[in-house]
Amino acid sequence: VFKIFTNTVDGTGQMGLQGGREQQVAAPLAAEGPHLLFLGDIRDRLTAKTAYGLAEWRPERVKGQWRLSEDCVDIGLPDLSPANARLAGVRSLVIGAAPAGGQIPPHWGRCLVEAAEAGLDIVSGLHSRLADVPGLAAAAERKGVRLVEIRTPPPGLPVGTGVRRPGMRVLTVGTDCAIGKKYAALALHRAMQARGWNADFRATGQTGILIAGGGIPIDCVVADFIAGAAECLSPAADPEHWDVIEGQGSLFHPSYAGVSLGLLHGSQPDAILLCVDPGRQEIDGCPGFPIPTATEAIARNLEAARLTNPACRCVGISFNGSRMTAEDKAETVARLEAETGLPVVDPLVDDLDPILDRLVG
Amino acid sequence: VFKIFTNTVDGTGQMGLQGGREQQVAAPLAAEGPHLLFLGDIRDRLTAKTAYGLAEWRPERVKGQWRLSEDCVDIGLPDLSPANARLAGVRSLVIGAAPAGGQIPPHWGRCLVEAAEAGLDIVSGLHSRLADVPGLAAAAERKGVRLVEIRTPPPGLPVGTGVRRPGMRVLTVGTDCAIGKKYAALALHRAMQARGWNADFRATGQTGILIAGGGIPIDCVVADFIAGAAECLSPAADPEHWDVIEGQGSLFHPSYAGVSLGLLHGSQPDAILLCVDPGRQEIDGCPGFPIPTATEAIARNLEAARLTNPACRCVGISFNGSRMTAEDKAETVARLEAETGLPVVDPLVDDLDPILDRLVG
Repeated sequence: VFKIFTNTVDGTGQMGLQGGREQQVAAPLAAEGPHLLFLGDIRDRLTAKTAYGLAEWRPERVKGQWRLSEDCVDIGLPDLSPANARLAGVRSLVIGAAPAGGQIPPHWGRCLVEAAEAGLDIVSGLHSRLADVPGLAAAAERKGVRLVEIRTPPPGLPVGTGVRRPGMRVLTVGTDCAIGKKYAALALHRAMQARGWNADFRATGQTGILIAGGGIPIDCVVADFIAGAAECLSPAADPEHWDVIEGQGSLFHPSYAGVSLGLLHGSQPDAILLCVDPGRQEIDGCPGFPIPTATEAIARNLEAARLTNPACRCVGISFNGSRMTAEDKAETVARLEAETGLPVVDPLVDDLDPILDRLVG
Repeated sequence: VFKIFTNTVDGTGQMGLQGGREQQVAAPLAAEGPHLLFLGDIRDRLTAKTAYGLAEWRPERVKGQWRLSEDCVDIGLPDLSPANARLAGVRSLVIGAAPAGGQIPPHWGRCLVEAAEAGLDIVSGLHSRLADVPGLAAAAERKGVRLVEIRTPPPGLPVGTGVRRPGMRVLTVGTDCAIGKKYAALALHRAMQARGWNADFRATGQTGILIAGGGIPIDCVVADFIAGAAECLSPAADPEHWDVIEGQGSLFHPSYAGVSLGLLHGSQPDAILLCVDPGRQEIDGCPGFPIPTATEAIARNLEAARLTNPACRCVGISFNGSRMTAEDKAETVARLEAETGLPVVDPLVDDLDPILDRLVG
């Protein structure tokens, strides 16, 4: 069996590089499933995207949801208290929604303590630290459970080298943030597995890391180490092996382009898959910054990617058609195919064979 | 008097944003001069570039050097012990050289303790933390002196917004790392002052921060905040005011391009000054990565810069001619002028009027 290096959440509750770059054995995930998804009193789906992502992509790993109010979002799992969840075999509570303001409110904090008291590990991708929740560290120590911070990058990340490494890589890139890069990568990975390819999904954001059971939160890394972190995330592999790497940000985003460029350079992708949103006119949250055309986005990403992989090419375009009419969808596909000459797919619905064929073509 | 926001080392020994983005009063520097420059037993000039930089650009702020061996580099200052330096009015010891391996060796650690015991603040831009030097924190507390870490970025940095702000800005960019971006910016700032322009040097690296008495170590910032840090570094100013911003890395460097791009976007420069090294064929430390032509480097930097400032232009090319014959220098100038049509200068020697004229032309 060919095993590859994996970055995982270790027993100290920190993301850890298991044994450095050369290690070839995947380590077990400290934040073990099954999970109970904590939703607090969140009422909009977007704020609960971590919970929805886990339920969608790892249904076998989520056993229930814990909601604090009637009008809280319902992701369709059994409502369980921490104590009942523990009895049902749940091992960890995952904070599946982001509180308003980014800070953990006191009544959420008391829930986390209750879950720790019930014997569950607590897993968080929020900015505020679990250790700062009153009483939580003490409860965790008393019960022997772990506080796992997904946002803490692994210690000891190296500076990037630009040295090529074996294995094949495809990176999802976008014309903006929050435009489907994670779902496109997950769908592409699933399609590869369906074809029997040797492939891994490489996560770079909180939700992706929870889904994958490991990864590196690339936007939390110190700036000097972005490319180095990306090199670690998709290490040397079998020449036929594919890493499907979750993209972050956009080269066209005035806040985050540095993250996107470092990830692009360190990933050394053989191919990129461009994610677009036909309905979006401006960069999200940045009025006056236009969304680039697909042609422009492809050109600029390839220009940058070819610094570390001169053979990089674009293999297709991905968009989320879930809220479009069949007519609008067909028009979008036709227009983007005419513009770029590439396959255009709604990755959660469409056949991804045209993309896979181009990856090996 | 028009006063602008400045990021400084605060009393806790951390870089601090004094009062947020809107603050208009420059705060005093906690790491006060005059300095004693600690050189340890370093034998090569390059490793002591912080000491050389301070002695070159702020001679009035350095009173002496402390060397541990006869064959240590000599930057031409009086050799002083910490106790004698204190008697001569010195307020702080600046570690002016980087130890081999990046860690503070035990015999250096004992020197730092001695300096703290003598009543000097200790200022470090090294990766390893002063607080980890055995006995140093205790000595500092006992004597009431500060341990100042230049590499620690300010807390509370915001995400970039891309929103334009008043004031004029010029950023030095490079075809590689360590190619003269700091010296070019300092020389340009000096030339502006000589003309009576209202101008500030904005430092982004350790040596620059020590020279300027403030700044943000941009490569130490968490990746999500690179552009936001750059926005804070050169805040809204008088429309006629110039910020001369020290560049970092290179868009063509496989390790650090993300830092360079975030800095470029957040700086929103009205102009860039390209720094080149005519003798360099490959990116330093990255065999196989060619140095781009000046034309290519200008085009790629302007393409990226115009995301946040569509009017950005290149005003000249800078190179270090100190180790070139007069003939080679003349050939370099003629060749680069013919290639780009821009003024080409050795900024420590040549008249910078052609650059200044273009900035306001």
